[in-house]
Amino acid sequence: MEIKLDRKSPAPLYLQIRNQIRRLILSRRLQAGSRLPPERELAGALGVNRSTVVNAYRELEADGLIESYVGRGTTVKFIPPGEEGQETDLAVQTPVWKSFYSRQAARMFNPIISNILDLVNREDIISLAVGLPSNEFYPLKEFNSIMSGLICEKGRYVFGHGPTAGHYPLREYLAGFLKERGVETMPDNSMVLSGSQQGLDLAAKVFLEPGDALVVEEPSYMGALQVFAAAGARILGVPLDEEGLRVDILEQILSRYHPKFIYTLPTFQNPSGITMSILRRRELLKLAYRFHVPILEDDPYSELYYEGERMPSLKSMDNHGYVIYLSTFSKMLFPGLRLGWVAAPPVLAGQLVMTKQLDDFHVNSLSQWAVNEFCRRGLLEKHLMRVREEYAVKRDLMQASLEELAPPGFRWNRPAGGYHFWCKLPEGVKAGALLARTIEKKAAFVPSDAFFANGGGTNRLRLSFSRYPGELIREGVRRIFEALGEMFCPGEMSGEVLTRQEVRPLV
Amino acid sequence: MEIKLDRKSPAPLYLQIRNQIRRLILSRRLQAGSRLPPERELAGALGVNRSTVVNAYRELEADGLIESYVGRGTTVKFIPPGEEGQETDLAVQTPVWKSFYSRQAARMFNPIISNILDLVNREDIISLAVGLPSNEFYPLKEFNSIMSGLICEKGRYVFGHGPTAGHYPLREYLAGFLKERGVETMPDNSMVLSGSQQGLDLAAKVFLEPGDALVVEEPSYMGALQVFAAAGARILGVPLDEEGLRVDILEQILSRYHPKFIYTLPTFQNPSGITMSILRRRELLKLAYRFHVPILEDDPYSELYYEGERMPSLKSMDNHGYVIYLSTFSKMLFPGLRLGWVAAPPVLAGQLVMTKQLDDFHVNSLSQWAVNEFCRRGLLEKHLMRVREEYAVKRDLMQASLEELAPPGFRWNRPAGGYHFWCKLPEGVKAGALLARTIEKKAAFVPSDAFFANGGGTNRLRLSFSRYPGELIREGVRRIFEALGEMFCPGEMSGEVLTRQEVRPLV
Repeated sequence: MEIKLDRKSPAPLYLQIRNQIRRLILSRRLQAGSRLPPERELAGALGVNRSTVVNAYRELEADGLIESYVGRGTTVKFIPPGEEGQETDLAVQTPVWKSFYSRQAARMFNPIISNILDLVNREDIISLAVGLPSNEFYPLKEFNSIMSGLICEKGRYVFGHGPTAGHYPLREYLAGFLKERGVETMPDNSMVLSGSQQGLDLAAKVFLEPGDALVVEEPSYMGALQVFAAAGARILGVPLDEEGLRVDILEQILSRYHPKFIYTLPTFQNPSGITMSILRRRELLKLAYRFHVPILEDDPYSELYYEGERMPSLKSMDNHGYVIYLSTFSKMLFPGLRLGWVAAPPVLAGQLVMTKQLDDFHVNSLSQWAVNEFCRRGLLEKHLMRVREEYAVKRDLMQASLEELAPPGFRWNRPAGGYHFWCKLPEGVKAGALLARTIEKKAAFVPSDAFFANGGGTNRLRLSFSRYPGELIREGVRRIFEALGEMFCPGEMSGEVLTRQEVRPLV
Repeated sequence: MEIKLDRKSPAPLYLQIRNQIRRLILSRRLQAGSRLPPERELAGALGVNRSTVVNAYRELEADGLIESYVGRGTTVKFIPPGEEGQETDLAVQTPVWKSFYSRQAARMFNPIISNILDLVNREDIISLAVGLPSNEFYPLKEFNSIMSGLICEKGRYVFGHGPTAGHYPLREYLAGFLKERGVETMPDNSMVLSGSQQGLDLAAKVFLEPGDALVVEEPSYMGALQVFAAAGARILGVPLDEEGLRVDILEQILSRYHPKFIYTLPTFQNPSGITMSILRRRELLKLAYRFHVPILEDDPYSELYYEGERMPSLKSMDNHGYVIYLSTFSKMLFPGLRLGWVAAPPVLAGQLVMTKQLDDFHVNSLSQWAVNEFCRRGLLEKHLMRVREEYAVKRDLMQASLEELAPPGFRWNRPAGGYHFWCKLPEGVKAGALLARTIEKKAAFVPSDAFFANGGGTNRLRLSFSRYPGELIREGVRRIFEALGEMFCPGEMSGEVLTRQEVRPLV
């Protein structure tokens, strides 16, 4: 099998390989059943990476031209004769997909969220990367009974379409839930979302043009940063101190730029765990009013407080309709139902509906009905009372594990709520390099660069304590420190730790 | 209560009203409990539309400053004294949200989908507007048992996060399902979506820049047209004849423009019901290869054939990886679970995952597990066999109703599959005007302008026969013709029918 690569051609090497093999097959010079060389061998012969050949074979397989079986290698399939086999057809080039992409697509290149999600159900890895409720606490019995009742009695509704803004009784419940927390809103101004992540996407669509400025906390939630970056926004970071957003720095930024909005997680901030003080909240609102800048408040964790009382939301303190409020059932109850909501000022609520109808019409009806029923039976409040206690215990277990196992120079906060410890590595250690080693030890965390929009923050990590039973929390922490310890082995340390290139997060 | 409007101000009138009342309340010039004038009265006094006052009151209500009760009118609420009541605060202006919007948001102004969805569960209206499976056929018993089993045995998974691309066993099932239909694909190249609508949104994000050209059939599915229009695309329509897309016209367009892709519904096209012939499919693919233009194939209806055999998809005839294939469970099974899928060429599949992870992480896990289980028990194929027969009967019932009731000059197709009749009104009647009258008669349809990206097509309508029992199909058709008949009343007709402004669709 002769393949010639043209290294000056703009066509990627894997496509050149693929197209030439394709022609050999379609012109019957490679017969059905004949075996292709193993990937490693062909890569060697052509002087390319093995992954280049893997990609070429993968495309040929997707085209239905070859098939691979473990142990039997890769063989040419039978291609029925016909029009498609004729000469004219052989000249057809596969699309070079990247040449069709929008600029926005080209800004979506970081698979971190998808990679973290892929690891969630892997039993062999203790992933402290994802902030998940613990499935030990899932109220399965209650949900089974509610769902079953709904399917029997309301089947025609729960499997049918519903309004774009969401199942009205659930929106009513949410308006009441917010009212009890000091937010004056009405069901008509709230919309049910496919998780609060969808609210971030909607906000980007409704507000952001490429080049628009917006303000975020530094560090901030990676899922939001990626959405805003994909929209081409200019992301201005404002640092945090122990009282939250540095409003003095914010003021300077607002007076210099005209950001479209300020994105903030005021309570048990992700990843830092910091809660903005009441005073700072007031100052933030005043600045928003003075500079006419809306606030996008992301509030997934405020119900998960383990000390003292629930903090009031910015939305509850806002008398002028500047705050768009996002929250979710993902941290309180179940993440897999993808159920969040937004409470917006009235005019904006209408525009959000216009935008969501084009995304996916509406959120899964059955889940909306079931969660509404669950909440209205008082089971959400009951569930929250339970999990607050349970997560406080887990938080304390991670604190104890860190105290017991952390090497000198390793620092961390102790969050009063939410799911995350935000940790600082000893001088000179990069979180990306540590992650690569940690995964070899079958554990994972999120390295800090994911939380910084404009670089920086390479020496921190986020550990989530919520999802595992106590012994696994300790074991996960132990594995991370084992990996960290190896980076300090005499003779190895200086070179690796100080000069190794930042590894892109693999979880 | 004195309110002064400045009609030269850029601030909308409703905001001027709202801000002045707000100041009166916060400065205690309007006391708690005092009654505001009825909306109609204040509108008259100020010389504005009633809706302007309604919007002002709605904002004040959302701000928690007033409350309205049926029968008691609108009264001022008690506002606790505090910082927020001070003079500095009174000067704060509510954000003028539109001034923050992106250009994309400004292109999203047509509420038609959301309005159609709002009507779905209204018992008093026979809506032939939405193409919905009939809830009589929902396999509720099977789903109840499957869901219950899953919650008991797999609760920790079905309520938890899953991979962005979807529950792997379901993707395997889908790859097999497509394979049986001649499509060579692999689970890794397919992704589960929140309905195929989400696939349209992803395609717009990945491919479209403002000003980019793309090709659609004319008429085409409104949900797609709106997504592409919101992205700022230049939408080039190619007309259909009884064999489907006019490839002769397509060739001219492709030779003049460089569209990013061709969007087509080859089988039981929405709204026209037309199925593209095999010959046309081959010609379409050849043109795509020749001009290097990918094809986005939307195939929600091909399983719902009522005569002859299933048509092969473009994807199954494509040997060069040009076709991105979208389909959904919404028409075959349940629309409310929001479950669709895409099968894409391998390189593109990775980019679609990158894009979806930022939208909503992944599709509702429970629904994916349940539908997978349903399909793997062979229940989908069984269900399809049943509904094909049932929908054929409904199709024939609508055909019979039209034959019985249609006035002279009213024309329609008789679809061989899918959900829709595409009808032409008698000369001079506009579908928008007819819709307004039809809604008064408690029925609804989709007027044709929704299916044309660039205007035109004002004298057609789409009737969906799938969702109602026979007697309601006939009654819905009867109501539409009753409304139509009134437009031809002597003395009224000429003026109204010929000069009345096109009414924006209200369903």
